[in-house]
Amino acid sequence: MTISPLAHVDPAAQLGTNVTVGPFTVIHANVVLGENTTIGSHCVIGVPTLLAEGEPLRIGANSTVRSHNVFYEGSTFGDGLVTGHQVSVREKLVAGVDLQLGTLADLQGHTSIGDHVRIYNGAHIARESRIGNYVWIFPYVVFTNDPHPPSDMATTGPIVEDFAVIATRATVLPGVRIGSDSLVGAASLVTKDVPAGMFVSGVPAKKVALAKYVSLRDGSGAAYPWRRHFHRGFPAEVVERWVAEFPVEPVR
Amino acid sequence: MTISPLAHVDPAAQLGTNVTVGPFTVIHANVVLGENTTIGSHCVIGVPTLLAEGEPLRIGANSTVRSHNVFYEGSTFGDGLVTGHQVSVREKLVAGVDLQLGTLADLQGHTSIGDHVRIYNGAHIARESRIGNYVWIFPYVVFTNDPHPPSDMATTGPIVEDFAVIATRATVLPGVRIGSDSLVGAASLVTKDVPAGMFVSGVPAKKVALAKYVSLRDGSGAAYPWRRHFHRGFPAEVVERWVAEFPVEPVR
Amino acid sequence: MTISPLAHVDPAAQLGTNVTVGPFTVIHANVVLGENTTIGSHCVIGVPTLLAEGEPLRIGANSTVRSHNVFYEGSTFGDGLVTGHQVSVREKLVAGVDLQLGTLADLQGHTSIGDHVRIYNGAHIARESRIGNYVWIFPYVVFTNDPHPPSDMATTGPIVEDFAVIATRATVLPGVRIGSDSLVGAASLVTKDVPAGMFVSGVPAKKVALAKYVSLRDGSGAAYPWRRHFHRGFPAEVVERWVAEFPVEPVR
Repeated sequence: MTISPLAHVDPAAQLGTNVTVGPFTVIHANVVLGENTTIGSHCVIGVPTLLAEGEPLRIGANSTVRSHNVFYEGSTFGDGLVTGHQVSVREKLVAGVDLQLGTLADLQGHTSIGDHVRIYNGAHIARESRIGNYVWIFPYVVFTNDPHPPSDMATTGPIVEDFAVIATRATVLPGVRIGSDSLVGAASLVTKDVPAGMFVSGVPAKKVALAKYVSLRDGSGAAYPWRRHFHRGFPAEVVERWVAEFPVEPVR
Repeated sequence: MTISPLAHVDPAAQLGTNVTVGPFTVIHANVVLGENTTIGSHCVIGVPTLLAEGEPLRIGANSTVRSHNVFYEGSTFGDGLVTGHQVSVREKLVAGVDLQLGTLADLQGHTSIGDHVRIYNGAHIARESRIGNYVWIFPYVVFTNDPHPPSDMATTGPIVEDFAVIATRATVLPGVRIGSDSLVGAASLVTKDVPAGMFVSGVPAKKVALAKYVSLRDGSGAAYPWRRHFHRGFPAEVVERWVAEFPVEPVR
Repeated sequence: MTISPLAHVDPAAQLGTNVTVGPFTVIHANVVLGENTTIGSHCVIGVPTLLAEGEPLRIGANSTVRSHNVFYEGSTFGDGLVTGHQVSVREKLVAGVDLQLGTLADLQGHTSIGDHVRIYNGAHIARESRIGNYVWIFPYVVFTNDPHPPSDMATTGPIVEDFAVIATRATVLPGVRIGSDSLVGAASLVTKDVPAGMFVSGVPAKKVALAKYVSLRDGSGAAYPWRRHFHRGFPAEVVERWVAEFPVEPVR
């Protein structure tokens, strides 16, 4: 366990074995960190808020939180969380294992996130969003949650199903369901539900084709579902399942 | 008055009674903070700049500046300022009371802002913008100020009138006037003036309808002007006025 | 040389004469800073990464890095770098002299940047981008590098030629070439190559006209090529060349 002498760690915080804390970081009392987790410099971990209703911030084992992150109390992350720099996460977010959050990502809390999700740089996840497993949310994607802002009906963010891909800078309106294995094109405005397996694009987003008809540039086949060809960073047992699901066809 | 022993406060800074300063924060000399104001950790308050022409940074009473904010000298904020994290504000901005600035908001200074304005996460307010009272600027809205960048004519940001609502990720071009009680749709590009009370949307933004014809999802009436139904966070005397202006119609 | 006693500077870091380091800043070992360079407060300079393959972070002389910046080891900047606040730069970026990076700019590394480039606030530069000389990239422009994300073919960012201007919030798709002296309009989605001297705009971006037909608002002539009329901040010898290239026509 290496706690920088320049960090400010509340004695009530519960740090697992082999936790590392960088200089100029503040760790508040209501925090539980799993073993082997690293917190970078200049972070604020476990910001107190009444909205957390007393729940602690829990970050699982083997996680890496990089510099200048701000995490509120009241959220829970599975093992293997990895973040970039200047990430903000509010209260009442529940995330599975192996979540990756890019630099400047901003999560407003009150949100559920499945396992093995990647949320990239500058993405903004509104409150009350629901994100499945193996979802990709690329840089500067914005989720919204109020159908006619400002209103007291701001309670339904987007719902994103497993394996969906939302490309750079898409904007997704409140309550929209993004189906499993679907693809949202870059810079799109998604105003209505996206069926499973569909590729949509534009402002407002319209159906282009089934995503499986998008081909890889090198001519090696379909680009979607992406797990057909992209395995980097996922656990071996998961990749094995995907390889069985999408066997390589013999060259004829 | 609680000044963290880990903060670095210039003795020349003028701190009102009961001011709180978090750890690892730098407060420069040319700063005036009102009573009961809280400055979070990791901030830089009152960054010196020649462009401030010697004017101090003034933040009113009962304000909350959260962690990792950067405020330059030469700007003035009324009482009750509340900010998120990682907010930046440059010199020569003058704002009224009860301003809220979301996480990652970036204000370039040389701007006027009225009372009771909400500017959300990641919004970018170009120099020489003029924002009225009770204006809503939602996440990742960008204001620009140069009609043909780069040029020496970069001196006219947008002008936003009272009660206007600019939804998530809209981009507003230089010198455009957004009329009172108007609504700009999400992800729009606003290239010309928006009349009072109008709802515009699209790239480029076009008139959709009068905003008053947008209905609340729960069927309880018009969504705009928003003060007809949305009162949360505004002072009681203001809300009373709004209730008188928009009396609830009897159920027939 | 003024190193704040509240900074944490690795003794192995190589600091030129008259280097200044602000409080609460961390400077790692594998860093070389040129003379007269100033590093602001709350920065992390030279973050170790295996991807840097042992190369140091080099920042040239007379540079100004403002507060809350994060620079990885393995990148090189010429003299006169100036950054805003909360900027992030990853490894293997090579930039020329006089680079300006706005607040919240996020550079993913593995990128080449020429001389005298301006990259504004919140811009996101994907890996494997190639940026020429005298290029302007305005706020919240996003470059992407994966033609069908996620894939193993994410290796070609945009290519931007000399004097090109990319206006606020444009999104540029992978491998697109933005020609010299061209102009990309605000909020555009650039899906294919932009010829030299062309003005494109829209989602997706389409040809509008030759950029030289865009006129300055004050009636004083063509707005592009911008070096015809805009000289602020560039070295005298460069401006002299531009004045000779675009002589002022006599008033008739």
